[in-house]
Amino acid sequence: MISSERLAEMCRVHPAQIRKDLSYFGEFGIRGVGYNVRDLLSEIKKIFSTHREWRLAIVGIGQMGTALVRHANFAQKNYRFVAAFDSDLEKIGREVTSGIVIEPFSRIRPLIRELGIEVGVVTTQPAETRNVVDLLVDAGIRAILNCSPLQVGSLENCVVENVDLTVNLEYLAYFLSESM
Amino acid sequence: MISSERLAEMCRVHPAQIRKDLSYFGEFGIRGVGYNVRDLLSEIKKIFSTHREWRLAIVGIGQMGTALVRHANFAQKNYRFVAAFDSDLEKIGREVTSGIVIEPFSRIRPLIRELGIEVGVVTTQPAETRNVVDLLVDAGIRAILNCSPLQVGSLENCVVENVDLTVNLEYLAYFLSESM
Repeated sequence: MISSERLAEMCRVHPAQIRKDLSYFGEFGIRGVGYNVRDLLSEIKKIFSTHREWRLAIVGIGQMGTALVRHANFAQKNYRFVAAFDSDLEKIGREVTSGIVIEPFSRIRPLIRELGIEVGVVTTQPAETRNVVDLLVDAGIRAILNCSPLQVGSLENCVVENVDLTVNLEYLAYFLSESM
Repeated sequence: MISSERLAEMCRVHPAQIRKDLSYFGEFGIRGVGYNVRDLLSEIKKIFSTHREWRLAIVGIGQMGTALVRHANFAQKNYRFVAAFDSDLEKIGREVTSGIVIEPFSRIRPLIRELGIEVGVVTTQPAETRNVVDLLVDAGIRAILNCSPLQVGSLENCVVENVDLTVNLEYLAYFLSESM
């Protein structure tokens, strides 16, 4: 069993927030006792649909793109890269990782349909980001993880999640300042 | 001006959480009106100590390490990489970015002191992560951003922030599942 207090501590929010958020999805906890860890984990996996595979395309195969495609965490959690795109003609045809050959932007639309890709990961230079987001949305993509330095707002038909590690650094800086 | 409702929407938490969190640091808002954006931003910068420069060391100069050192976001927000380390003797002496030469692990301790480095960024292979965290802590580092695939718990004298982009993908997967 785990209490909402302990969960809140781990997530750095208030226990009331944990209870409120979870209650939105059903009755998981036992009042005054907490949550059964195995049941809670299984419910959370259902909520986040991580019990099934999600197919990803990555656009922009520089250092960051290559690192992400090869990173162990994604496949472990059922997020599978199935296509890679770059605008640099020099890179087209190279294998970025076993089984994934870099394709030109002209192949974004057909491959996304053909391979059933649902999420786009953008690791381009900032000057290309906006154009790439438009290409992905045009191809039917409705969820984008944007790791480029240019932040992009969510669009009418597509949610954009901007990754910015300086947010994590801010937490560390806060911790260091507080404990000085 | 901005309301706590709008801030909550942008942060995806409850407005009460925003008000509670901010009140912890002082009296910023005007009841029924909201927050003055410029003042709030300046206060938040003070809270996170982003008004001054933080010096970072990076350990593990593979694809991910190289991408992070060269990423535009860090310098923009006053996080400056000043040293880079790798265990691969082949890489020692190479410049990972303008002005930063890759150093061996034996130089971690002296350089961290000499250069006044306060935060370590770990981008090693998982097998090396634990050892590198120990080396950094031994050298006096008290805050680590861990981007390696191996999660590390916080230590007695050092806070560890684990970066896992699959958490961002979970949010996107949830959004897609909900809207199907």
